Amino acid sequence: MNLKDYIADIPDFPSKGILFRDITPLLADKDAYKYAIDQLKEYVKDKGAELVAGPESRGFIVGCPLSYALNVGFVPVRKPGKLPRETISCEYALEYGTNEIFMHADAIKKGQKVIVVDDLLATGGTAKAACQLVERLGGEVVGVAFLIELEGLNGREALKDYDVFSLMKY
Amino acid sequence: MNLKDYIADIPDFPSKGILFRDITPLLADKDAYKYAIDQLKEYVKDKGAELVAGPESRGFIVGCPLSYALNVGFVPVRKPGKLPRETISCEYALEYGTNEIFMHADAIKKGQKVIVVDDLLATGGTAKAACQLVERLGGEVVGVAFLIELEGLNGREALKDYDVFSLMKY
Repeated sequence: MNLKDYIADIPDFPSKGILFRDITPLLADKDAYKYAIDQLKEYVKDKGAELVAGPESRGFIVGCPLSYALNVGFVPVRKPGKLPRETISCEYALEYGTNEIFMHADAIKKGQKVIVVDDLLATGGTAKAACQLVERLGGEVVGVAFLIELEGLNGREALKDYDVFSLMKY
Repeated sequence: MNLKDYIADIPDFPSKGILFRDITPLLADKDAYKYAIDQLKEYVKDKGAELVAGPESRGFIVGCPLSYALNVGFVPVRKPGKLPRETISCEYALEYGTNEIFMHADAIKKGQKVIVVDDLLATGGTAKAACQLVERLGGEVVGVAFLIELEGLNGREALKDYDVFSLMKY
């Protein structure tokens, strides 16, 4: 199955000059969505992952069914003000300004093996911050997986300390 | 399995006087998360659902693994500015002010059977708006399912035109 057949290319979204890769046709197709998750499961299966962690909110679309397919738990990585208990956070640079993501301080036990997932690898800032949160809690990042990788934005370089996998490259 | 054992009760979150039901311990536990999704699957299985629709972002946490488990597609219901193609939207009242949610205009084909899911049924405003979007596109809402139902906020009354199911009641 060619998953790219299920990605819509949207020029100038969310702003002028950006070519947005829209995954909603993939999600709407039961076979394509299942195939994508099963391919990620195949990548993960020998890594001994005990948890999947994914950033809000498209990371949930990839990470939650993957955690179900692997039969492991899921750790939501969230925007400010969303997690109700004690959190740790990591700030990272955007093109303009910064972003900060949060994880519950008890989300990961020391030594737990974690797969970090998101829909899209661009500069790698969000995924790297998520990996750092996992590690600050004593977890081990055994892989970082994406549906889509935008080559040329150096996301792999930002994640060079990790095993990186993507299903589609542009 | 008593799923309530995996819900953390957080007083005064997100604001004074609110008792927040935190599902993150449930998500972190592989058996509890899988059990919850499988129970929803059991509820859905005879309804002939062809799609699961869930609102951003905790609806993704419930709806995406359910769509995987059922082997049907998933339709994200999103906040303003997130969906890149032509959308329809529905505005609904909050305690103070209003909220508006969006769905791609081609997300549902006429006659398709859709399950609407979210983590929590409170007043039912979000779920009802999501159901209305499904119906405006010609879809049929064959059920509305939640992890948690807060009884006494009249969510079932707001959703009285639909078949409503929840795994935990408070």
